[in-house]
Amino acid sequence: MMKKQLIIVAGGKGLRMGGEVPKQFLPVNGKPVLMLTIETFHRFDPEMKIILVLPKEQQAYWNDLCVKYQFRILFLLADGGETRFHSVKNGLALADDDGLIGVHDGVRPFVSQEVIARCFDAASINKAAIPVIDVVETIRKINDEQSETVDRNNYKLVQTPQVFTTSLLKMAYGQEFTPLFTDDASVVEAMGVKVALVEGNRENIKITTPFDMIIAKALANV
Amino acid sequence: MMKKQLIIVAGGKGLRMGGEVPKQFLPVNGKPVLMLTIETFHRFDPEMKIILVLPKEQQAYWNDLCVKYQFRILFLLADGGETRFHSVKNGLALADDDGLIGVHDGVRPFVSQEVIARCFDAASINKAAIPVIDVVETIRKINDEQSETVDRNNYKLVQTPQVFTTSLLKMAYGQEFTPLFTDDASVVEAMGVKVALVEGNRENIKITTPFDMIIAKALANV
Repeated sequence: MMKKQLIIVAGGKGLRMGGEVPKQFLPVNGKPVLMLTIETFHRFDPEMKIILVLPKEQQAYWNDLCVKYQFRILFLLADGGETRFHSVKNGLALADDDGLIGVHDGVRPFVSQEVIARCFDAASINKAAIPVIDVVETIRKINDEQSETVDRNNYKLVQTPQVFTTSLLKMAYGQEFTPLFTDDASVVEAMGVKVALVEGNRENIKITTPFDMIIAKALANV
Repeated sequence: MMKKQLIIVAGGKGLRMGGEVPKQFLPVNGKPVLMLTIETFHRFDPEMKIILVLPKEQQAYWNDLCVKYQFRILFLLADGGETRFHSVKNGLALADDDGLIGVHDGVRPFVSQEVIARCFDAASINKAAIPVIDVVETIRKINDEQSETVDRNNYKLVQTPQVFTTSLLKMAYGQEFTPLFTDDASVVEAMGVKVALVEGNRENIKITTPFDMIIAKALANV
């Protein structure tokens, strides 16, 4: 059994929610989203080393929440960076060198236990694995002034956790940053490594808008 | 002001719900989804001619629901066909020749009044208009054994109503069927006509899975 670590990235400024409180701190089912996310992984493996990456200016607020909600799951805290790439890199600096490491969005509390297991299992064999789901809507590609329907069967929507051997991810994040690095898979692929795709779960939404908050509250009560 | 007509396609067998009752008949907020959809368009324009396309074997069930719920909005009923293309074609046969006509999924009750207006307005100018929304997730393209991240800004997710001048849509549906016709826009584009894209609304989901039903019930209570 390989050691498991997890970087949770909660760098968002939450401006899209229209309020002052970043979305990862909003309560769903009576508890901040970020705590639900941490609990989900802790339930999967209580031994998992959890590294939380949070913008410096949000850390005092988060600490107050931890006291208020008597949050007792242990985690290491890293400072958020300029971009997601820099945030993950800061988190990686606190990770042990061996075993596997996942990177997960702090605002995805509804990843299923099966999907977490699938990602870590696949990464232990393939070195790199990410969860994806089918595109259920018709999809169009925009080309300048034109647009065309494309075959949705050729596309997948990407979720997290994105899981890798720790040595591979550390090497990948040693590369120079480019704006093409939109997720961890793209950083690893820039080294020529192939990433395995495993089936995600549809409930594993990224909570970024008021619409998502409505869905989240419904999912939390299922 | 151009005359407005609407074809509502509710051809799905609903097998994906895992139950016996097709999804368009499931209650949301105390009323079958299909009735909510019809009401949404009737609210937009009480003069709109509504043509409902329903598989023959579901029509008795639907009629019973209309009695039970004292549903009083008038509509014409057409038989569902082999594919969506054939269903729309059956509906078109009952449409008047002039003005504008929209085609809408029966399981999309949450299209906003603004989006309906936007589609009909744009179609009155451009002859063809469809609502689209941004892709918010990371998206990957699958190429045989490989996959790669693509720029999600180059893609849009397509919703309904898809609105056209009636003469254009009737001409388009006179073409021979091909499996490339996945929505009405693709049928019209096969004639070399350009389709205008307008902004859709995220709540305008297509209810096709139990997960979607949870979201629908949450949206209905907002």
